[in-house]
Amino acid sequence: MERLFDEELNKLREKLLRMSGIVEESVALSIEALKDRKEELAREVLRREEGVNLLDVEIDETCLRLLALRQPMAGDLRLITSAMKIGVDLERMGDLAVNIAQRALELLRVPILKPLVDIPRMARLAQDMLKDSIQSFIDRNDALAAEVCKRDDAVDALENQVFRELLTYMLGDPATIERAVGLLLVSRYLERLADHATNIAENVIYLVRGRSIKHNVDKIRSAD
Amino acid sequence: MERLFDEELNKLREKLLRMSGIVEESVALSIEALKDRKEELAREVLRREEGVNLLDVEIDETCLRLLALRQPMAGDLRLITSAMKIGVDLERMGDLAVNIAQRALELLRVPILKPLVDIPRMARLAQDMLKDSIQSFIDRNDALAAEVCKRDDAVDALENQVFRELLTYMLGDPATIERAVGLLLVSRYLERLADHATNIAENVIYLVRGRSIKHNVDKIRSAD
Repeated sequence: MERLFDEELNKLREKLLRMSGIVEESVALSIEALKDRKEELAREVLRREEGVNLLDVEIDETCLRLLALRQPMAGDLRLITSAMKIGVDLERMGDLAVNIAQRALELLRVPILKPLVDIPRMARLAQDMLKDSIQSFIDRNDALAAEVCKRDDAVDALENQVFRELLTYMLGDPATIERAVGLLLVSRYLERLADHATNIAENVIYLVRGRSIKHNVDKIRSAD
Repeated sequence: MERLFDEELNKLREKLLRMSGIVEESVALSIEALKDRKEELAREVLRREEGVNLLDVEIDETCLRLLALRQPMAGDLRLITSAMKIGVDLERMGDLAVNIAQRALELLRVPILKPLVDIPRMARLAQDMLKDSIQSFIDRNDALAAEVCKRDDAVDALENQVFRELLTYMLGDPATIERAVGLLLVSRYLERLADHATNIAENVIYLVRGRSIKHNVDKIRSAD
């Protein structure tokens, strides 16, 4: 029983790592498609979506099996339910990579607005946040997770900067509006990707420290 | 033990209903603030955020207690893990209502762009989807849940229409760009609200029918 439990747990870790690897690469590919105007890369992202979705369902099923295998103790319980929630975040992140690829395909049909600098930078940050958040889960490393949460501000700052810059383009030349709106949406997707990585990291902190840091709940409660 | 389990289960249902009620009202208030230019309503939404966040953490804790109370059978297991996932969706929906309220506060500082018709219509649809998705969970009504999933297309169609209309405004008069972008973001938030309601409904179908309809996983698997 114990061995079966550990085996299932290992499978779960492997699946989370595989899923996050695909998502991370999909983000990279979709941004590369946009930046270097390579339609084929965007199509590759769309092709990978099914694999991500399948892993999402498999992670769910593995978690349910683990919960059913034995009466889980507090620690295991949190581990398994955290993994389920991480699966949800990863699936949404996969969808966001697909959204970026779809925008890229639209934007590749029209002339380039400007060379992209901040958007690839945002993507890089979001990818690293994803990678480190999953690593922090595997290693139960709450310090790394806390560090991931902090990086979210840098992504938000970049998004704000991109937003202002694109507004300037639109105000200066209405012919740029459709393209600028497309890029604006891409930067929103990246910002949400970083939010999901932050969710994963918050979950890890909860898992390791045994209490929620989400929403500063201790503060809210003590103010009751 | 059995009675304690049932009591906790009832608490869980109550909390989900309370949380979805607050979120639904927050969406309504934020859109009313925007439509009728009432700043006070937007501020009310911001004030409610803490309550939603607190309920999110409480739902999580109730679910963990339920899982720890006894070795859950397949059916109970699914019920509890579904509730956890619904909590995640509700929390994100609360954030989206806050996002709308924040945009509303910005848009109230500038002259009105146009009387809003489609955006309040989208909001109404999203609110009903939320309400019915939670009801389908409480009643284990997979037919209602399936119906909620179908309604998502109507929201997407409206979003597309709003997008095209706002583009026309921006192209016609660059002075409208900032306001149009603000409204464009609001319609995105509403579309995501409907997506979350769809997630909840999909979860209910999984719960009731015992297999995932997400991602047409049966189709993908049989194609392997």
